[in-house]
Amino acid sequence: MSSPFVPGTSVRIEGRAGGSLDGLTFAAKDLFDVAGHPTGGGNPDWARQNPVPARHAWAVQALLDAGATLIGKTITDEVSLGILGENAFEGTPLNPAAPGHVPGGSSSGSASAVAQGLCDTALGTDTGGSVRVPASFCGLYGIRPTHGRLNLTGMLPQAPSSDTTGWFARDAQTFARVSEVLLSEAVGEGLPIRLLVATDAFGFAGPAVADALQGMLAGLRKVVPQVEEVVMAPPGLSVWGRAQRVLQPVEAWETFREWVERDNPRFAFSVAKGLVLGAMSSEADRGWAELMRREVCGRLRHLLTPGTILAMPTTPFPAPKAGLPLNALTPLRDQILCLCAQGGLAGHPQVNLPGATVEGRPVGLSILAARGADTLLVRTALALETLA
Amino acid sequence: MSSPFVPGTSVRIEGRAGGSLDGLTFAAKDLFDVAGHPTGGGNPDWARQNPVPARHAWAVQALLDAGATLIGKTITDEVSLGILGENAFEGTPLNPAAPGHVPGGSSSGSASAVAQGLCDTALGTDTGGSVRVPASFCGLYGIRPTHGRLNLTGMLPQAPSSDTTGWFARDAQTFARVSEVLLSEAVGEGLPIRLLVATDAFGFAGPAVADALQGMLAGLRKVVPQVEEVVMAPPGLSVWGRAQRVLQPVEAWETFREWVERDNPRFAFSVAKGLVLGAMSSEADRGWAELMRREVCGRLRHLLTPGTILAMPTTPFPAPKAGLPLNALTPLRDQILCLCAQGGLAGHPQVNLPGATVEGRPVGLSILAARGADTLLVRTALALETLA
Repeated sequence: MSSPFVPGTSVRIEGRAGGSLDGLTFAAKDLFDVAGHPTGGGNPDWARQNPVPARHAWAVQALLDAGATLIGKTITDEVSLGILGENAFEGTPLNPAAPGHVPGGSSSGSASAVAQGLCDTALGTDTGGSVRVPASFCGLYGIRPTHGRLNLTGMLPQAPSSDTTGWFARDAQTFARVSEVLLSEAVGEGLPIRLLVATDAFGFAGPAVADALQGMLAGLRKVVPQVEEVVMAPPGLSVWGRAQRVLQPVEAWETFREWVERDNPRFAFSVAKGLVLGAMSSEADRGWAELMRREVCGRLRHLLTPGTILAMPTTPFPAPKAGLPLNALTPLRDQILCLCAQGGLAGHPQVNLPGATVEGRPVGLSILAARGADTLLVRTALALETLA
Repeated sequence: MSSPFVPGTSVRIEGRAGGSLDGLTFAAKDLFDVAGHPTGGGNPDWARQNPVPARHAWAVQALLDAGATLIGKTITDEVSLGILGENAFEGTPLNPAAPGHVPGGSSSGSASAVAQGLCDTALGTDTGGSVRVPASFCGLYGIRPTHGRLNLTGMLPQAPSSDTTGWFARDAQTFARVSEVLLSEAVGEGLPIRLLVATDAFGFAGPAVADALQGMLAGLRKVVPQVEEVVMAPPGLSVWGRAQRVLQPVEAWETFREWVERDNPRFAFSVAKGLVLGAMSSEADRGWAELMRREVCGRLRHLLTPGTILAMPTTPFPAPKAGLPLNALTPLRDQILCLCAQGGLAGHPQVNLPGATVEGRPVGLSILAARGADTLLVRTALALETLA
């Protein structure tokens, strides 16, 4: 297990004095531009093809302006294509909550750094689960905001119709302070009025995770007056997962194609395979996946009316062992993506709440809300922490 | 341009005194086992999964026993999957005959070391052209022997139904001495009685290469009494190429699958893509390619009767520039494979003869013979050198 920081880098930029985040420290996933430092993207051949950035990414600048101090750039899965947090070139950041197990990815180093207490918060990105999964595996608060809400200038894209900037924290108070800055909105006092429990997602995760999350669900029931059980994905979570598994690699190939076809970069086999499959995706598959995306958007819009939140397990299991063979990891990755697909497809905000474990390893409870209702989720996290 | 030798390695093993190769030096492509040294295979993740070999590969031992001294292990395209000689991890060996241009691969370092005069001969492997192409690009004698003739123990396999061990030399005398050892057969005095000129292959290469090779063809006409023009591949060289492009990646995937699915190794994108396509090849495509292979074998058996040789350009052009973008290299690679496919499909022996240039860069003339008639080709090379 290696450091969460990109090997050979050293960065420290003081935040502006007197802001709302004065005294906090943060790290940025190596997909975010930091002026004067190459954006490595977790791949040895990425940085070479871009000039060293002259400006900070929007999210980095926003945290600095609010007073937080940048203390490092963190390891990411290669160009954010990965969900487990094992980077063959830069190493696997320590998961301090489950030593010997993966941290989750692709925002692996950011989650690891916060979980280790090396900084108070850290920027990540979430296209297909890259903040939610490491938050679940490392036992952190983590948000995938409403798609399109934040300014993504200076963040390395992957699949733009799903890409978001997210962040991590160890406690709900810090999480709320950072969220107010990056969402540019105060976290109010209003709590949800209706809680939907996604029985299909709990069923998919299985009894160990469902049992582990019962205590947190009970807490939510104390905070939210009205509770209903629903099937989130009537066609099946695996059908939603399949749609995302078609669309995301197609967009990733569009994003990286020029670079790949010019530079023939080095990748771990699994990363290259994903790009090849994206390039080979058929028109018919893409057409179907776009139709399913419309259905997912419709379903979540129907379920997640103003004041409603939906609860589901963030991941179907806690962090798997580090160093497993690829053919053991592939089915695990596919299972994870079935519980994450709704984020990339429909763009609703989702927050991972820490607080449960299976066999001693963290597993998170996710809450989702209407598009734009990000602060309602943050407010719920605060209420739940106060209860605990 | 880097050294032809594998970075960080240093090998020297004296040959047995008094043998027929006494006083010669040789290098071995990093696919051949050398006792006490890891077999790197041109990939940073290959060596880790195999123990350091305790015995020399058969071909290495044969050269040592004959008196040649091993002076180094040479760079190869990753696990022999490449035809241009650009290795993203270990560098591109210098082509001294065409500086700034690729050496050809996958036996890139072996060809480079011989062409630079760093050793007298060098071992390579040829599955789909990996000796013939660098011999053509670097201006060397090079042989792909009859498939199945040499003992391949200790040579890293790729596609066993096409794999061969080959070698390079700068002059025909040295080439003949080494050939007698590795073929375990004296090079006699008998010359071919019939020369077939493959008009389709010359047409495929185009006028610049065809014109450049006319002088060498004229030399062959002086050595061989009877000359006929033939179409080597009636269905088209691109159809033969297509059959090889189906079968070779399928076998390569079978060879490397267990490693890839366990270790998720790092590859240049183009290498990973080839393996993915091999894994995805359809039963129908494979069935067709096997049928075409039968036809290629029948066609070459019909043409290459005892005493007959066939002449064709080894490559459709001299060495391309080093460092071209991948999307410029891909069509060049596909064109090269159209002139190389008969080797992997039918297993006839083929020798590259140096002696021509296009725009100052070498391009070779190939001669092929009946299976088992390897020394007839070596004898022809000697006769042609004597003429010149």
